[in-house]
Amino acid sequence: MELLDQTVDDSVFTQHESEVRSYCRSWPTVFTRASGSWMTDTTGREYLDFFAGAGSLNYGHNNPIMKAALLDYISDDGITHGLDMATVAKGKFIEAFTQKILAPRGLDYKIQFPGPTGTNAVEAALKLARKVTGRESIISFTNAFHGMTLGSLSVTGNSMKRAGAGIPLVHATPMPFDNYFGGVTEDFGWFERVLDDSGSGLNRPAAVIVETVQGEGGVNVARMEWLRALSELCERRDILLIVDDVQMGCGRTGEFFSFEEAGIKPDIVTLSKSISGYGLPLALTLFKPELDVWTPGEHNGTFRGNNPAFVTGTKTIEHFWSDDSLTKEVHAKGEQINTAFTELAERYEGISTRGRGMVRGLVFEESATASKVCASAFGAGLLAETSGPSDEVVKLLPALTISTEDLGRGLQIISDSVKEVIG
Amino acid sequence: MELLDQTVDDSVFTQHESEVRSYCRSWPTVFTRASGSWMTDTTGREYLDFFAGAGSLNYGHNNPIMKAALLDYISDDGITHGLDMATVAKGKFIEAFTQKILAPRGLDYKIQFPGPTGTNAVEAALKLARKVTGRESIISFTNAFHGMTLGSLSVTGNSMKRAGAGIPLVHATPMPFDNYFGGVTEDFGWFERVLDDSGSGLNRPAAVIVETVQGEGGVNVARMEWLRALSELCERRDILLIVDDVQMGCGRTGEFFSFEEAGIKPDIVTLSKSISGYGLPLALTLFKPELDVWTPGEHNGTFRGNNPAFVTGTKTIEHFWSDDSLTKEVHAKGEQINTAFTELAERYEGISTRGRGMVRGLVFEESATASKVCASAFGAGLLAETSGPSDEVVKLLPALTISTEDLGRGLQIISDSVKEVIG
Amino acid sequence: MELLDQTVDDSVFTQHESEVRSYCRSWPTVFTRASGSWMTDTTGREYLDFFAGAGSLNYGHNNPIMKAALLDYISDDGITHGLDMATVAKGKFIEAFTQKILAPRGLDYKIQFPGPTGTNAVEAALKLARKVTGRESIISFTNAFHGMTLGSLSVTGNSMKRAGAGIPLVHATPMPFDNYFGGVTEDFGWFERVLDDSGSGLNRPAAVIVETVQGEGGVNVARMEWLRALSELCERRDILLIVDDVQMGCGRTGEFFSFEEAGIKPDIVTLSKSISGYGLPLALTLFKPELDVWTPGEHNGTFRGNNPAFVTGTKTIEHFWSDDSLTKEVHAKGEQINTAFTELAERYEGISTRGRGMVRGLVFEESATASKVCASAFGAGLLAETSGPSDEVVKLLPALTISTEDLGRGLQIISDSVKEVIG
Amino acid sequence: MELLDQTVDDSVFTQHESEVRSYCRSWPTVFTRASGSWMTDTTGREYLDFFAGAGSLNYGHNNPIMKAALLDYISDDGITHGLDMATVAKGKFIEAFTQKILAPRGLDYKIQFPGPTGTNAVEAALKLARKVTGRESIISFTNAFHGMTLGSLSVTGNSMKRAGAGIPLVHATPMPFDNYFGGVTEDFGWFERVLDDSGSGLNRPAAVIVETVQGEGGVNVARMEWLRALSELCERRDILLIVDDVQMGCGRTGEFFSFEEAGIKPDIVTLSKSISGYGLPLALTLFKPELDVWTPGEHNGTFRGNNPAFVTGTKTIEHFWSDDSLTKEVHAKGEQINTAFTELAERYEGISTRGRGMVRGLVFEESATASKVCASAFGAGLLAETSGPSDEVVKLLPALTISTEDLGRGLQIISDSVKEVIG
Repeated sequence: MELLDQTVDDSVFTQHESEVRSYCRSWPTVFTRASGSWMTDTTGREYLDFFAGAGSLNYGHNNPIMKAALLDYISDDGITHGLDMATVAKGKFIEAFTQKILAPRGLDYKIQFPGPTGTNAVEAALKLARKVTGRESIISFTNAFHGMTLGSLSVTGNSMKRAGAGIPLVHATPMPFDNYFGGVTEDFGWFERVLDDSGSGLNRPAAVIVETVQGEGGVNVARMEWLRALSELCERRDILLIVDDVQMGCGRTGEFFSFEEAGIKPDIVTLSKSISGYGLPLALTLFKPELDVWTPGEHNGTFRGNNPAFVTGTKTIEHFWSDDSLTKEVHAKGEQINTAFTELAERYEGISTRGRGMVRGLVFEESATASKVCASAFGAGLLAETSGPSDEVVKLLPALTISTEDLGRGLQIISDSVKEVIG
Repeated sequence: MELLDQTVDDSVFTQHESEVRSYCRSWPTVFTRASGSWMTDTTGREYLDFFAGAGSLNYGHNNPIMKAALLDYISDDGITHGLDMATVAKGKFIEAFTQKILAPRGLDYKIQFPGPTGTNAVEAALKLARKVTGRESIISFTNAFHGMTLGSLSVTGNSMKRAGAGIPLVHATPMPFDNYFGGVTEDFGWFERVLDDSGSGLNRPAAVIVETVQGEGGVNVARMEWLRALSELCERRDILLIVDDVQMGCGRTGEFFSFEEAGIKPDIVTLSKSISGYGLPLALTLFKPELDVWTPGEHNGTFRGNNPAFVTGTKTIEHFWSDDSLTKEVHAKGEQINTAFTELAERYEGISTRGRGMVRGLVFEESATASKVCASAFGAGLLAETSGPSDEVVKLLPALTISTEDLGRGLQIISDSVKEVIG
Repeated sequence: MELLDQTVDDSVFTQHESEVRSYCRSWPTVFTRASGSWMTDTTGREYLDFFAGAGSLNYGHNNPIMKAALLDYISDDGITHGLDMATVAKGKFIEAFTQKILAPRGLDYKIQFPGPTGTNAVEAALKLARKVTGRESIISFTNAFHGMTLGSLSVTGNSMKRAGAGIPLVHATPMPFDNYFGGVTEDFGWFERVLDDSGSGLNRPAAVIVETVQGEGGVNVARMEWLRALSELCERRDILLIVDDVQMGCGRTGEFFSFEEAGIKPDIVTLSKSISGYGLPLALTLFKPELDVWTPGEHNGTFRGNNPAFVTGTKTIEHFWSDDSLTKEVHAKGEQINTAFTELAERYEGISTRGRGMVRGLVFEESATASKVCASAFGAGLLAETSGPSDEVVKLLPALTISTEDLGRGLQIISDSVKEVIG
Repeated sequence: MELLDQTVDDSVFTQHESEVRSYCRSWPTVFTRASGSWMTDTTGREYLDFFAGAGSLNYGHNNPIMKAALLDYISDDGITHGLDMATVAKGKFIEAFTQKILAPRGLDYKIQFPGPTGTNAVEAALKLARKVTGRESIISFTNAFHGMTLGSLSVTGNSMKRAGAGIPLVHATPMPFDNYFGGVTEDFGWFERVLDDSGSGLNRPAAVIVETVQGEGGVNVARMEWLRALSELCERRDILLIVDDVQMGCGRTGEFFSFEEAGIKPDIVTLSKSISGYGLPLALTLFKPELDVWTPGEHNGTFRGNNPAFVTGTKTIEHFWSDDSLTKEVHAKGEQINTAFTELAERYEGISTRGRGMVRGLVFEESATASKVCASAFGAGLLAETSGPSDEVVKLLPALTISTEDLGRGLQIISDSVKEVIG
């Protein structure tokens, strides 16, 4: 029998895998195949995926365009594992990325492949910022999420995840993200005040690291003027600005980079998740050429040259980023979600909505409700997850390529689930 | 024209990629295809690969057995990206790993997928050790290499790589690796003395992290009795023992785990590199069940469920680890290398050799010589790299599956290169 | 010739003493004798001392009451150096302190003698707070000053002084002191928000350390309601409250402890400077009995039992703190200063005043002016110093026992100096 | 009734003073007067003091020479508290110290008064070493004791005292003190090896801090050749050498500085304890002029100018250090102790002795014995204390000025106590 038609007993996971596992607890079934926005479990049941690999599957599962290229590459014995050797697959990716992504946006970045995950990209960004400036301290924001390795974890807000470090996480100071006080306080009032004040006790920062939309933090959206003001503040004070675009990049908010709309040019940018376009591990750290002070080999990583990911990533760029049609689609579908969520927010008390492009949150005053809505949606065949410090937000990250019909279907399931839970 | 038959200009890499790149400087050509122990560049020239992705390609490039399974899986729309959802591909991997690898060796480990790289596995191991013990300090060894993210880097010896952190790396204290003093000093004399002495100033350690053979550190081989003594020391003093088997596991030294020969059972084990068997990113952190104190989601990672890697990894286990034939092969080929290297050591002054299984080093008193030998070998079509604190060691990590003819051919190239350089 | 009638050449100091010296640069003369509020230099010139040893001489120089007791004690071969042995001098001090200071105020504190300086007292307080709570992080306030040893320095705001550490100062996070935003922002808005938010990234604090009036920080006065709110916040959230009363205690603000007026009872209190009443080194760390978790000898210090200081300290308590007459005097003289300063603030633009009791600041918008005023005053025979992050405040700390005539004389000198500098 | 003839109830201390108190537990009585080597309690009982304020009373209690000068100074209203203002008392001290102590020894040090305790002096030394070198890490030695504030504590060995920090103590790495392995291991073998090895994982140190004899650590005596080798090692490798002479300076080992005999010139030296000669708090940090990179006020301290201590300290220098008679006396009396201790070591099994000058230890294999001997001696009217990681050493620090009769009397008490306890 074919592998994908076999079954696996639940006990395989519960007995042998660590208690650290999480998503499989929310979605208690065994999945086997997937295509586009749909996943199938071993009983043949289909699920509409509104989580998209936490933003790693912006083009859906197993998109046929990349799939064909990937099969060709593997069949033809293209190099799979290449450390940081020069390869055709890597060269073509760099060409596509510089010509189709960077150049048209007026971005002149050097590219580092720091290891194939978001946290590798963030660690490289922090190391570089500290090396360039000779300072140790980093400014992060409330409810930020940047990764699980020690450097990234120290700039991450979630207290449960921080506790996992087992050592005090230092060298980072949180500042209020946009709208942290509900708009009643001046933006950067506290941040600028302590920077100005030589007696404030704040260690002078090497860099600020920011997400334009905090996905894990609860779909908190920074306004464009806030991002611009942050960028200007950093420039004025000789602090490097790192935009962590691991989850919000690759079109999630509409444009390729989530910061484009604000018209800013960060000093350092991290990308991962959807950059391979197929769910294959890959990550990039981008930075202005004058910051490229690395010594050869000073940061490395066994899987930094994941060549199959270069192949699918290149296809993604060629296919989706040669014009602005995907961007337009994202804005339209984002509006479709927004409309549905706004209706819910108007219909029920204790619900609000926020988001940008195709990352949208349905926020519940009563935080337990969000999990119940997701559980109900799972029962109806929809995969959605919560986020936020108290898991109070139903977070939607559908594939950008989802059909409007499927999108509508999923939104209806959510609407029904809300009704079931709080109606 | 097919992707793999295209050319890429050198300037793509030199202009756009960060100065941090390293291997592509030693091997200045553009590779395109690879199979078994051979890589081909865009000019059609073939290279015999004695580096095997720094130990990530123990079964050679694009091994046809795993390749077939991988193509099937992708063609059939098997799940590519699965976070930590339960999937058939993952379930089958866990089954194979527990039944064919762990059970026969009497190892009862829980499995964590901490993110798909070695450094993720090490970070998870360190976090867990600290959480379990409530202590912060880790003992590492001179010339250790464990990774580039902040936690792993703090237990890594190389001063150039440490400097890249940009912050003081603390919470770790180095101890002398086996034979650090050329055998004249009692094993663990210093380590035990400072543990015994409540006035020594050593913070009580949560764990010891050790490689059985230090690959990056210069092919330093720990004796079995040293490893046993270390294990006993840790047990006696309630310190957790972490064996980082990222490079030396998966058969590199003969047995699946490099610590088997010593008869020890570490508390925590890390695996990555060759665990997928195909060069696809995957990593495991294994630990005794009583250490599984993780809270759900306390450590996570977007690509921790790299399903194609599960598929090839499962095939690897089924094909190579159902009997001891590969282990025997590794010992035999290891001896073949050893014989060749011993001859060189006897023929020339200032050369010695060390190693275990199929990780072998040719050590040059004059450290610059090692790089010259590798450069000469590259000219003759062989890929080999140096290691050690002064890059004084030519380190051999051929595919375990290399034919004895190819192995002999490569050893001849090295012999010729040594002659050319110092002859 | 008598010692005190001899001269010393300036070069003794400039050639042999470190560049770190500071006050002797502002007041470039060689002092020899002192009495009450007056210091005399080797030329016989007299200076009115409005700095009082940075608050160490609340009862003036060489107060005859303590002087007599001190001379008796020394003449009679009372123990000078007693480590932490039980001595009559220490016992009498403890009796006086508990009966006349603590008991009437309803304070039930255990007393620790942690070493004879303020920074010793602060270090002990921080260590104890961390030990009791098992947490590492401390909340300090903008423009705080707590001392120069590493623990105290990490909770001190001044960036120049922090830079002297030579290592990154971590484990402390600054919060805005009262009125940091000119009253436009809600008290503790930021602090409570990040404590409430489990995703804020703030490490949960062991303790808050606060001065009721920040002397070094620029005579920043916390309002009573702010102190009460802080105390309630700490109690509500199980965070220890440390009041550093090293400079503001011993009657500087009127009552013995500066926090009495607010009606709060801190968990830990530090005292030093004027506690011996004679300028002799002595320090106390006070804490609630349930916090006394020290192991014998866990914190020690060679000079923690400075017995001559106990003798003068006891006299101080008996003489000055048996009724409320000194408190009343302080309030009256404080008002005298305030009146004079308010007049200046009204007469000149760019000047304001703030303070409490007998710590008062004259604040100059143009920061360089403050130093010029002090220099001019020195020329006229008055010792006063600046404070604040930009040295923009003329800080007055006269002896509490100064006569109203001398106080008036000094205020006139300041008034004249202001006129000279900015008039 | 005179203060010194009054009694104090035990409960004053047990009820009101913190549990942290220590010496008063070993010597459970209330002391009142002291003179020379004798202390008297409130019952009139006299005790022979062989501890001398842990080395703070090298010239005995209340030495009449300094006493007279002190009484004169106080009577004459000499300045008591002077911050770091230039005063006659301070100037005369600097003159005496540079002319009589530094110049004759060929030492050209700048003098810093960093606050009046040993730990202040050490903190200033560490800060300066880090500032000068731009490095963070410090090398300390096993069983070192340098103080209780966070910087000093991080280079202190005792695990109980370290635990009091409540935070992980980092930035310091212990190395084996002389004879740590009983002479079987090459001096500095481990230290030099890890410095040589760029892959060792040791952070490059700013400085080494060392005591020539570790008093608290158990009277561990460094050989002169070991100290010279350490000094050469530091010079060769551009690491600053700090000698902490807080306890062993001021003649304790014979010469004024304990490092003189080795013929070395440390980069930085700390002094405190006996520098005032009368038990008054005072401390000095000395350093080579080229290291004087302090910014004015970058390190300060309220009691750094303890003028009465300058007065007695100056007298000490004039009286005791104008010729080598005290040095000779110390050597002779040291020999007297050594003879007595050697006899005990020869008479009883499980006893050995070590020491230098007038710091001598009687070392018991059975560690509990040492405390019993001290308790027995206290019963017989002698004050002596234990030291060492297990309190296994009876440590003798008599006044350097003790008469040979008193010395003999005390040694007899110890001999009797040993006999009583183990005989």
